[in-house]
Amino acid sequence: MDITEIEQIVRNVLVQLEDTTTSESTCSRERLVPVEVSARHIHLSAEHALQLFGKPLEQKRELSQPGQYLSTGRLRLIGPKGVLDNVAVLGPARGKSQVEISMTDARNLGIKAPVRQSGDTKGTPGIVLASSDNIVAIEEGVIVAARHIHMTPDDARHFNVRDREKVSVHLQGKRPVVLRDVLVRVNKNFRLVLHIDADEANGCGCDENTTARIVKNKE
Amino acid sequence: MDITEIEQIVRNVLVQLEDTTTSESTCSRERLVPVEVSARHIHLSAEHALQLFGKPLEQKRELSQPGQYLSTGRLRLIGPKGVLDNVAVLGPARGKSQVEISMTDARNLGIKAPVRQSGDTKGTPGIVLASSDNIVAIEEGVIVAARHIHMTPDDARHFNVRDREKVSVHLQGKRPVVLRDVLVRVNKNFRLVLHIDADEANGCGCDENTTARIVKNKE
Repeated sequence: MDITEIEQIVRNVLVQLEDTTTSESTCSRERLVPVEVSARHIHLSAEHALQLFGKPLEQKRELSQPGQYLSTGRLRLIGPKGVLDNVAVLGPARGKSQVEISMTDARNLGIKAPVRQSGDTKGTPGIVLASSDNIVAIEEGVIVAARHIHMTPDDARHFNVRDREKVSVHLQGKRPVVLRDVLVRVNKNFRLVLHIDADEANGCGCDENTTARIVKNKE
Repeated sequence: MDITEIEQIVRNVLVQLEDTTTSESTCSRERLVPVEVSARHIHLSAEHALQLFGKPLEQKRELSQPGQYLSTGRLRLIGPKGVLDNVAVLGPARGKSQVEISMTDARNLGIKAPVRQSGDTKGTPGIVLASSDNIVAIEEGVIVAARHIHMTPDDARHFNVRDREKVSVHLQGKRPVVLRDVLVRVNKNFRLVLHIDADEANGCGCDENTTARIVKNKE
């Protein structure tokens, strides 16, 4: 075997490697993830729901994640610099109230909300919530929701990822991007979907037709 | 030379290739690109400037690109669904008036503005511009500015890119992303900077400390 043959072998390996890199087949296997844009919304504790609406939350329509719903209630968010009206309240009630807004909203309200995963509200700013009947001030709980992918254990096996793993996601919208460090959340009650917020959707030129591909968290 | 030696050679090649891929050294060479967030703004024709302000544009302060300036004038943008006040007018005057807004702005104004490079306004929607003294309706010229990198011919040689080439850009903000298809614009009068809009900045969790790295337009 001479040097020419070795070169040929190396070249063949490189071509195969190139094919693998280009198709990113190890992780995505060409299955696409639906994209949902989370508009600003509020989760209320049962106590705050009662204070603001005089009754428990009522379901208006179901959301994509099983058990979650859009309630009939709407609230005004009051910040030091501005207000946002008609903000959706989601149900069911949670242990603690939480407000999820975009960075654009945060700037308009005059609140320095950090990017956090849902539930991780320690040390976040508070805000004032107002219904037509009452006002409640929460001391913390305002976040800019960090993007994440909901999936079932079956989906996780398919994509070869684990719960809490961070992946990259290709979004082929009008402004194509790769979102990095996207948290995977696995639960048998979840339905497969990538959740991004309004700023991310606008920044990526995304709409309901945009396709998302999971790839490894590099590049 | 037996098969073990060949395997070793192939393995060495793969390791080197991995190093190259990881460091992305071919294009970036570790030089970073400053990031500027373009707020909504207006370019006016000399005629429209006169109609709205009764005099030519006056410089208030210089902008990063040599010769470009923030003028002393501010205008109200009036769309079918909303208005935006106090919008900056940039100078010097151009051949044609052009309004650059974010997708968030476009939604608030009620205008379907497409993502376009500056100057490419054919078939774009119009809008009403109002000063304290006058109103001008432009028939087209409202765009969501497509992100781009200004650089000199020297910069282009350094990054090994050409004028009008599209590259990817890593933005290591609070929400790390790779922007794809970013247009490179080369001119000896330019200063090196990546221009993104407010939605992109919010979507990427960027501020003035965010670093941008140019990489090849793949992955």
